[in-house]
Amino acid sequence: MSAATPLAQDRRRASIEGIVGLTRPDMERVNALILSMAGSNVELIPRIAEHLISSGGKRLRPMLTIASALAFGYEGGNHVKLAASVEFLHTATLLHDDVVDESDLRRGTETARTIWGNQASVLVGDYLLGQAFKMMVEVGSMRALAILSNASAVIAEGEVWQLSAAKHMTTSEADYLAVIDAKTAALFAAATEVGPVIAGADEAMQVAMRRYGRDLGLAFQLVDDVLDYDGSAQALGKNVGDDFREGKITLPVILAFARGDEGERAFWRRAMEEGRNDDAALEEAAALLRRHGALEETKARARGYGASAREAVESLPPSPARQALADVVDFCIDRIV
Amino acid sequence: MSAATPLAQDRRRASIEGIVGLTRPDMERVNALILSMAGSNVELIPRIAEHLISSGGKRLRPMLTIASALAFGYEGGNHVKLAASVEFLHTATLLHDDVVDESDLRRGTETARTIWGNQASVLVGDYLLGQAFKMMVEVGSMRALAILSNASAVIAEGEVWQLSAAKHMTTSEADYLAVIDAKTAALFAAATEVGPVIAGADEAMQVAMRRYGRDLGLAFQLVDDVLDYDGSAQALGKNVGDDFREGKITLPVILAFARGDEGERAFWRRAMEEGRNDDAALEEAAALLRRHGALEETKARARGYGASAREAVESLPPSPARQALADVVDFCIDRIV
Repeated sequence: MSAATPLAQDRRRASIEGIVGLTRPDMERVNALILSMAGSNVELIPRIAEHLISSGGKRLRPMLTIASALAFGYEGGNHVKLAASVEFLHTATLLHDDVVDESDLRRGTETARTIWGNQASVLVGDYLLGQAFKMMVEVGSMRALAILSNASAVIAEGEVWQLSAAKHMTTSEADYLAVIDAKTAALFAAATEVGPVIAGADEAMQVAMRRYGRDLGLAFQLVDDVLDYDGSAQALGKNVGDDFREGKITLPVILAFARGDEGERAFWRRAMEEGRNDDAALEEAAALLRRHGALEETKARARGYGASAREAVESLPPSPARQALADVVDFCIDRIV
Repeated sequence: MSAATPLAQDRRRASIEGIVGLTRPDMERVNALILSMAGSNVELIPRIAEHLISSGGKRLRPMLTIASALAFGYEGGNHVKLAASVEFLHTATLLHDDVVDESDLRRGTETARTIWGNQASVLVGDYLLGQAFKMMVEVGSMRALAILSNASAVIAEGEVWQLSAAKHMTTSEADYLAVIDAKTAALFAAATEVGPVIAGADEAMQVAMRRYGRDLGLAFQLVDDVLDYDGSAQALGKNVGDDFREGKITLPVILAFARGDEGERAFWRRAMEEGRNDDAALEEAAALLRRHGALEETKARARGYGASAREAVESLPPSPARQALADVVDFCIDRIV
């Protein structure tokens, strides 16, 4: 890392240790706030919330909000509330998604709907949404509220769109990108844009952080879509073939379908539209994706969005937070290297 | 109506014509805003929204918001946005409720979940919630946002509570009141409290309008619970016995259970907890409710809350809006006279 290099890129393997270390003290406060806001006299609510929290992932989104505020020298406590809101919006989406997708497992753990039923999952998701908005209101920034409430509507719109598009092989690449822009990238973009907003950074920085979050979110989702067909990803708790079995039409499938001959297209229609998606079909699907370089092409797109996200943070003033944000991009991409 | 009577109470039959006439011009704007905010490029969203709108009820909640603003001389346009938000919060709750209750009919019309499925109902509900918050943010009143976001969390909490309490004859009267306070009265209270808030009325008026909305909401729900066992209510589109068949433990049932002998209690347990709720059981239930005066007692409670709501609006400056708000109370109660 020479002084001339604005952002270190010379490590063999990117890591999220940077952002984890940077945000640790604030994330402890975020976690405490999450536990307290998931509390209720209605016993079922904290029970489901604790299940989600203990089986939870890396808490990437709230870490991004904290780091995005720290990157602009923010010194108050509102980034903690916004980070907890972002995590609640995400958790509510997961609860409702599992109901919609009829998922039994998430990251290898039974989903809330399997244990407590669809009814409780729908209603506890609504409660977490309500609590998220209460925390945002406490922050008192109309601009942050506008960004996050807009994201919340856009995410739901993307989910409905995905539902309409599901199992139709007519889904185009543009349709797919619009869906992941809404259902994944919108929350990443909101999570990172609110940092400069509450820090009072100038508008160019808000634009840069919005772009960073959006492009990181797109890259993240594309990588996820690749991992669903890539056996080496097991360690990350994702089950290979989940998307395939649910008839989710992701970019690798769209590319292979477009490049396939009539026989292959008929295979994809049977698998995605008619649900003929057993293990043999999954193997066949993986072979077709390889034959047409569909996974490689999807990875290339992910790298492109990653490069754009990295470029967006280059415009920030140098700081450990900026470096940590840049490293997150590499970490997400490296999952498929 | 003499000049000495602060609020007219001398009509034979209360009506909502007062509030309907008073709010008509603004409600036309509310309806236009609802249609526009329920719009989306995702075709399924406006289709479901239009279904809800065309099969919708009286739009009582948004009318209350409009009248509550007019009662304090409000002259801007923000009451229209808040009224539309209130209706969206309500509609989102109905969509999710129908999924949770597995309801096939609402007001004699097929529910959205029957036509488009549970998945679409969950997600379109989420979309309407997001749009509701976007409209609230546009209004720019932190106080109104705090009131409505709090209501949104409280409603969901009440629904989870109801889910936990459902089908348990151990549900106490206090449990029941806490549930309807959350799931019904909280939105009425928020809908009426935001009127004086955006009109800049003093805090005493906010407190009065909150009490008015809450007590009206409690009365409204108690009346609904009576109508579920009262055949004369068919005209209102409510199906007699819906609550009974769903195992919903309402105040009439709690009162009859408390006053019943061991044999009767066993009957209620079989019906509500074990689902032995065919037409013969419904008849038996209605007979027990009559024997113990449970419907009369519930009506008396409703009248008590109604009187309290009326008293709350007495403290407002005299105006056609105040009269219209008072008449709404009588109209709600009169459904059971």
